[in-house]
Amino acid sequence: MRELGVVLPPVFTPAANYRGCVRDGGLAWVSGHGPVDGETAICGKVGAEVSLERAHRAARMAGLSILATLQAELGDLERIERVVKVFGMVNCAPGFNRPPAVINGCSELLVDLFGGEAGGHARSAVGVAELPFDWAVEIELVARIR
Amino acid sequence: MRELGVVLPPVFTPAANYRGCVRDGGLAWVSGHGPVDGETAICGKVGAEVSLERAHRAARMAGLSILATLQAELGDLERIERVVKVFGMVNCAPGFNRPPAVINGCSELLVDLFGGEAGGHARSAVGVAELPFDWAVEIELVARIR
Amino acid sequence: MRELGVVLPPVFTPAANYRGCVRDGGLAWVSGHGPVDGETAICGKVGAEVSLERAHRAARMAGLSILATLQAELGDLERIERVVKVFGMVNCAPGFNRPPAVINGCSELLVDLFGGEAGGHARSAVGVAELPFDWAVEIELVARIR
Repeated sequence: MRELGVVLPPVFTPAANYRGCVRDGGLAWVSGHGPVDGETAICGKVGAEVSLERAHRAARMAGLSILATLQAELGDLERIERVVKVFGMVNCAPGFNRPPAVINGCSELLVDLFGGEAGGHARSAVGVAELPFDWAVEIELVARIR
Repeated sequence: MRELGVVLPPVFTPAANYRGCVRDGGLAWVSGHGPVDGETAICGKVGAEVSLERAHRAARMAGLSILATLQAELGDLERIERVVKVFGMVNCAPGFNRPPAVINGCSELLVDLFGGEAGGHARSAVGVAELPFDWAVEIELVARIR
Repeated sequence: MRELGVVLPPVFTPAANYRGCVRDGGLAWVSGHGPVDGETAICGKVGAEVSLERAHRAARMAGLSILATLQAELGDLERIERVVKVFGMVNCAPGFNRPPAVINGCSELLVDLFGGEAGGHARSAVGVAELPFDWAVEIELVARIR
């Protein structure tokens, strides 16, 4: 991570009666995370207030927030055997039909960090109507833990 | 459940070629359930026709409908070892960006019933464009069964 | 498949850093697939440019594209022990609240091919704001492999 210049943000604390991550039977199910780094967040409709480039950065930020949660849960990201599934949701302005180009910001981070084999995941990338706190993206993930 | 005044609604029967719940390898995968109690349902756009308070109640109703399906499938809700994952979808009016406050209605029910450990789940709560029958919310769930 | 007149399309190649399918612990997690058959795709808003009938066909096409990916991954679709979960997303025009009637096109294909027991799956069918390439539907799936 140091080589790639990756710095994890503070762990995002769920504001309600749920967990940031649940481990079950060797899988870690990570809750939906937004593009949040401490007091900073990227909010707004992608394709209108938020450009594709900025949304791509938001997806990377959401990925980093997921990794911060996993780091806190597992103690060490080396314990991630592989990323199994990513579900990426984009807060789309009407007519913006490029959710995959946005969610690539997270997918590229995962493949850079874990490599093509352990980091290569199944994925859907879709446009939703609204997201919590008007986040530009929200991403959830399932990973195999060793 | 009696202590908490929880009464399960009739089991919601899927209207098509799918199941309300599939058990596989110790997990129960529960299909998307709406806020339906027999002939009654809460429908409409949250933030417009449906208030936050009413939508919160709808999320609780969807949770109860999920539990009715699990009760029918398992014979006994005591067989739920833990709730692993909740995916909550809110039928949002444009600009309503508080899906988490809505889906809390379901999360609070689960934690009240199963406790913070077994009931504490990973979650995403998002706003979708349209839901079946114009339901105000739809919720799906994955649980570990003993 | 021959009896049912089912012909698989070419495998859809993900355009980015993710996989069409990841196998983990006996499950195959299949990425979101659209209604694509080689150069042909069904695109547009369901309930506006795309009729319910055509959208139903699109859901079947997305199901076939999923099966093509599984065939390439597994070598033989007989290795599918059961379909566990389907998540169906419809590119809805405002006010079109019949996602289940659309996604039935995929569910019916699965039950026809694998039978009511192995093909019967948990499901959610919802309307999203936007889909990649303006696809009319996108479907992802989890299956148990033997």
